[in-house]
Amino acid sequence: MEFVRTGIDGVDGLFSMNGYPMGNSILVLGGPGSGKSIFGMQYLYKGATVYNEPGIYVALEETPKKVERNVASFGWDVSKLSEEGKITIIDATTPRIKEVDDDVVRSGLGIDNLITNLKEMVEKTGAKRVVIDSLSLIAFHSSDDFELRTKLIRLSVSLSEMDVTTLVLAEASSNEIGTSVFPPETFLFDGVIWMVLDTSSQERRLAIRKMRGTKHVLGAFRFIIDDDGIQIKA
Amino acid sequence: MEFVRTGIDGVDGLFSMNGYPMGNSILVLGGPGSGKSIFGMQYLYKGATVYNEPGIYVALEETPKKVERNVASFGWDVSKLSEEGKITIIDATTPRIKEVDDDVVRSGLGIDNLITNLKEMVEKTGAKRVVIDSLSLIAFHSSDDFELRTKLIRLSVSLSEMDVTTLVLAEASSNEIGTSVFPPETFLFDGVIWMVLDTSSQERRLAIRKMRGTKHVLGAFRFIIDDDGIQIKA
Amino acid sequence: MEFVRTGIDGVDGLFSMNGYPMGNSILVLGGPGSGKSIFGMQYLYKGATVYNEPGIYVALEETPKKVERNVASFGWDVSKLSEEGKITIIDATTPRIKEVDDDVVRSGLGIDNLITNLKEMVEKTGAKRVVIDSLSLIAFHSSDDFELRTKLIRLSVSLSEMDVTTLVLAEASSNEIGTSVFPPETFLFDGVIWMVLDTSSQERRLAIRKMRGTKHVLGAFRFIIDDDGIQIKA
Amino acid sequence: MEFVRTGIDGVDGLFSMNGYPMGNSILVLGGPGSGKSIFGMQYLYKGATVYNEPGIYVALEETPKKVERNVASFGWDVSKLSEEGKITIIDATTPRIKEVDDDVVRSGLGIDNLITNLKEMVEKTGAKRVVIDSLSLIAFHSSDDFELRTKLIRLSVSLSEMDVTTLVLAEASSNEIGTSVFPPETFLFDGVIWMVLDTSSQERRLAIRKMRGTKHVLGAFRFIIDDDGIQIKA
Amino acid sequence: MEFVRTGIDGVDGLFSMNGYPMGNSILVLGGPGSGKSIFGMQYLYKGATVYNEPGIYVALEETPKKVERNVASFGWDVSKLSEEGKITIIDATTPRIKEVDDDVVRSGLGIDNLITNLKEMVEKTGAKRVVIDSLSLIAFHSSDDFELRTKLIRLSVSLSEMDVTTLVLAEASSNEIGTSVFPPETFLFDGVIWMVLDTSSQERRLAIRKMRGTKHVLGAFRFIIDDDGIQIKA
Amino acid sequence: MEFVRTGIDGVDGLFSMNGYPMGNSILVLGGPGSGKSIFGMQYLYKGATVYNEPGIYVALEETPKKVERNVASFGWDVSKLSEEGKITIIDATTPRIKEVDDDVVRSGLGIDNLITNLKEMVEKTGAKRVVIDSLSLIAFHSSDDFELRTKLIRLSVSLSEMDVTTLVLAEASSNEIGTSVFPPETFLFDGVIWMVLDTSSQERRLAIRKMRGTKHVLGAFRFIIDDDGIQIKA
Repeated sequence: MEFVRTGIDGVDGLFSMNGYPMGNSILVLGGPGSGKSIFGMQYLYKGATVYNEPGIYVALEETPKKVERNVASFGWDVSKLSEEGKITIIDATTPRIKEVDDDVVRSGLGIDNLITNLKEMVEKTGAKRVVIDSLSLIAFHSSDDFELRTKLIRLSVSLSEMDVTTLVLAEASSNEIGTSVFPPETFLFDGVIWMVLDTSSQERRLAIRKMRGTKHVLGAFRFIIDDDGIQIKA
Repeated sequence: MEFVRTGIDGVDGLFSMNGYPMGNSILVLGGPGSGKSIFGMQYLYKGATVYNEPGIYVALEETPKKVERNVASFGWDVSKLSEEGKITIIDATTPRIKEVDDDVVRSGLGIDNLITNLKEMVEKTGAKRVVIDSLSLIAFHSSDDFELRTKLIRLSVSLSEMDVTTLVLAEASSNEIGTSVFPPETFLFDGVIWMVLDTSSQERRLAIRKMRGTKHVLGAFRFIIDDDGIQIKA
Repeated sequence: MEFVRTGIDGVDGLFSMNGYPMGNSILVLGGPGSGKSIFGMQYLYKGATVYNEPGIYVALEETPKKVERNVASFGWDVSKLSEEGKITIIDATTPRIKEVDDDVVRSGLGIDNLITNLKEMVEKTGAKRVVIDSLSLIAFHSSDDFELRTKLIRLSVSLSEMDVTTLVLAEASSNEIGTSVFPPETFLFDGVIWMVLDTSSQERRLAIRKMRGTKHVLGAFRFIIDDDGIQIKA
Repeated sequence: MEFVRTGIDGVDGLFSMNGYPMGNSILVLGGPGSGKSIFGMQYLYKGATVYNEPGIYVALEETPKKVERNVASFGWDVSKLSEEGKITIIDATTPRIKEVDDDVVRSGLGIDNLITNLKEMVEKTGAKRVVIDSLSLIAFHSSDDFELRTKLIRLSVSLSEMDVTTLVLAEASSNEIGTSVFPPETFLFDGVIWMVLDTSSQERRLAIRKMRGTKHVLGAFRFIIDDDGIQIKA
Repeated sequence: MEFVRTGIDGVDGLFSMNGYPMGNSILVLGGPGSGKSIFGMQYLYKGATVYNEPGIYVALEETPKKVERNVASFGWDVSKLSEEGKITIIDATTPRIKEVDDDVVRSGLGIDNLITNLKEMVEKTGAKRVVIDSLSLIAFHSSDDFELRTKLIRLSVSLSEMDVTTLVLAEASSNEIGTSVFPPETFLFDGVIWMVLDTSSQERRLAIRKMRGTKHVLGAFRFIIDDDGIQIKA
Repeated sequence: MEFVRTGIDGVDGLFSMNGYPMGNSILVLGGPGSGKSIFGMQYLYKGATVYNEPGIYVALEETPKKVERNVASFGWDVSKLSEEGKITIIDATTPRIKEVDDDVVRSGLGIDNLITNLKEMVEKTGAKRVVIDSLSLIAFHSSDDFELRTKLIRLSVSLSEMDVTTLVLAEASSNEIGTSVFPPETFLFDGVIWMVLDTSSQERRLAIRKMRGTKHVLGAFRFIIDDDGIQIKA
């Protein structure tokens, strides 16, 4: 089995094989402001600049322009990497606007379009890394739990057929450590990473709660967001 | 990237760039009496009087007259600023009365009218700052979660197309610190500010829980409401 | 802005302007036996006997006769004040009986009748103070949340059009201090007063949680119910 | 106003006027085995044997025979009092069996029959005291909350028209002290008495949480069930 | 009134009359693995071998063969007692399989068949003791709460007409002491016995929470399951 | 009665008869990453390599290829055992994809196909051990609770007719010790094993909460996942 280096300071060392098992789909859970989107883009940025692995960012919540702007303060020139074909941002916000026509939203057509677009782009760019931001928006577009689950199964099966290692970002309803009820769809993923903010100590922490195909450390590790992005502190 | 000064004593210093990233939509959450409406009007007042940035207050809960009256004790002459075109209050309570006809409410027509009116007024006044008071009333008019989410996506997309920095006020179901479950729509916003009242210490506190495009401090900061409005205490 | 004196011992002093802002609609929340009804009637009684302001008591839960009887032990002769036109009790229990015919209840006709009756009576008596006892019964008659919210908006808008300062009594599901989840309709009101019973210390407490248009103290204040009614203790 | 002596050792002294205000409808809440049924029958027994006030026991849960048997160990010969016309047990379990025919249950016909029977029996026996055992069974027969509330309003209005002082027994979902969420229909009653079992100290306690028309003590009082029934301990 | 000896070591002494009041229907609540089924079979076994009272075990969850196997390790030869007519196991799992045809399940026909079979068997065998294992499976077969409640009322009324003392076993959602929310149907039973496992002390405990017609001790008593079955420890 | 050795270090000794009662269906509950799938495969691997008992792994969540890959790091060559007919993986993910056609999913046809396939395979391979991974996916495919329960009863009855000892894996919503609310379908199983991660001590623990037909230890036992798989630590 091969393993994917995240390249994020201190994260790879949390796994016995120094990275994610290649091909895994990993759920990244965190409350508002927990740093999920930064984590996702840093994974693609390191892939593009250090490991020569192209990546795709599926932007469901924000326009590509805003996605680029949000990480500009870390000195990550996503716009340039995009021109070089190393990071591709799929603008899934445009279909979002169209989807607000009720019939389309409810038919689930949206998820199939998304999967088709993603597949084409993976083949075209040779991407090895995918970030989907976010599962919450897919859930938001689903009229009931059954529809959401059907969409998730389609997405999960499709991702397992592409040769990519994926982070799926999802908003948790709490930002505190110790609130540990998992969303019911967790078992569809090969891994779960939890990013939280301990409001009493004012510290950010990251914990790996599941990772199929490798052993991993069990604790919650302090991390900071500084001028270079996310960094695990010893 | 440009940044917007709130002008509220002690708030701008909580962000590494001394203000909100321009263009952000920010959710201001707080329980009853937490000071959300004062925070929102103070943001517009400072914009109008200190930074020469016109603003719009979308009054869904109260008539413009009552909105003006509520902040009169701080010496903010909103009526005069309104005549000068520096603060415009959109009276969204009149449509509210009309909307109680069941068909209109359920059709979601209301949100489109609101967006259209807001767009026109932004263009006409050159407003840079918008306050929507409140999301709770929009939710109140929605017959189910799916309708609310559809409205929120329309509003969110529309706000991102206007060149404004927006505060959307929302009532939390608790006024206590430590009750930190976020409403599910939080991820649609670029930022989240939480205003709470610690009932044991009888102190008001404000915390930034998320702000895309800038680093920010993590703690909860004591603030007071005195004769000049809101003020962060060291 | 003008302010209304409650005349209840120790209550007016909790507000920076010594009373409620005139025209406010205030939610009075409390568990069973918390003293809400006594608070409401004392507000009308003081208005009628001390400040020469006529009042209206909308009795949804109990017949006027029972309302009068319940406060007789405080020496408040509501029957006499009623004859003098200083306190008017609207018997909204009679329509209540009629409303149990399913069609009428579900049509929401009830709330419109109530509003119409209240308006007429305000004009006729020159009432400045209104007490609605209780919101819980209005909720009880609503077949779903959407119907209730529609009723509340109609009531809220109508109250803001009359020139009265209103207390709306509502039953909380707990009588303990520290249980502080607010009902979702709270934001429709200009103020919230919470009356609780601390079962461990066996003390009654009152707290102002919101009051638009005036500053107020933040703490919870001990009160007693003695032979003269409600009284805040220092 | 007149007051009704319960005659139960130590209970009357908890009210400033030594008893319930005559005409009140009082909810007696308690978990399984809390002693509600014993409290109810003791109230009737004392009325019949000490105060010469006839009483009616509406037996919805158990047959009259079982009701009599359950209190036989206290030496209360209900059968004899029944022959003397001092205590009448209305067997509401027979209609219960009939009501399991779906149409009848859902029509709400049951509650009207019950009210009619109760009225006739009150007139016939001159009863001053009524016990309804239990509200839980009425709820059990209701297909939704709206139907239940409609039934409760009919019952509540009807009881207020009869010249009786009523205890309505209701099963709480917990038997512990400190679990103090009230059922939503509480506000329809003039009083609430809570009977609980403190499982840590293994002590039974009784608390008055509401009583219109009289002041009452606020604490929770230890009681025992011994050979004479319920008895408050100092 | 007569009383039934359970014959289980230490249980009878928890009641002032050394046993259950004859004719009572008793709910035995406990989490998975709490020992409910063993308690039920031990009650029948002791009845058959010590008190010469035949018993019936209604096996809804498992086949009679498996029921017998499960208690074989205690040396209870249920198979032999069955041949002697002292313990009869009604196989209610066969109808269970048939019932998965949707129409039959939803019609509630199942409960009537069960009652009819039970009545016939009680008459035929002269059974004095009945165990129904379990209420949970009856609930499982009910499409909504209303259907379940209708079934329970039919069962409750039918049991009260037979001359038997019944244990109805039901699975609680927790196995811990201190989780004491009762299921809503509890009030239909004359008694409630709670069997729990204190996971911190790793001790099993049994508590009587209600028993009509007799006084009982209030505490929770430690018990063990050893080679002879259940045994209360002093 | 016969007993099945798991062969997992330290697990068999937790049962008084050194293993599961043969024929039992056992629910293995745990949060994401608790080690359920490893436990399941280790049970089959030990059966195949130590006890010469063939096994079947019903893979609903992942393709057989991924299942094999996930345990490769323990040195378990499932692929080879599969060729030798000692472990058979039923690929239930292919029907999963088909099932996303709405009609098929809702008809419950899926579960019958699964049962039929499993029966055939048990007969063909002489399997004595079955692992179903996972119940959560079956629940995921059910449009409501009633459908799920119907499926579970069919599965439960079918498993009891085959001569196999089965582990059914199910995802719990929490990974913490002390969160002990059981899912409602627990009583359909003969045993319950709980696998949790104590996040404060960073230790994994395993507890047996129910096992029909044998006595078992009550505590929660620390285990580790090392290069050889799961191992209970003294």
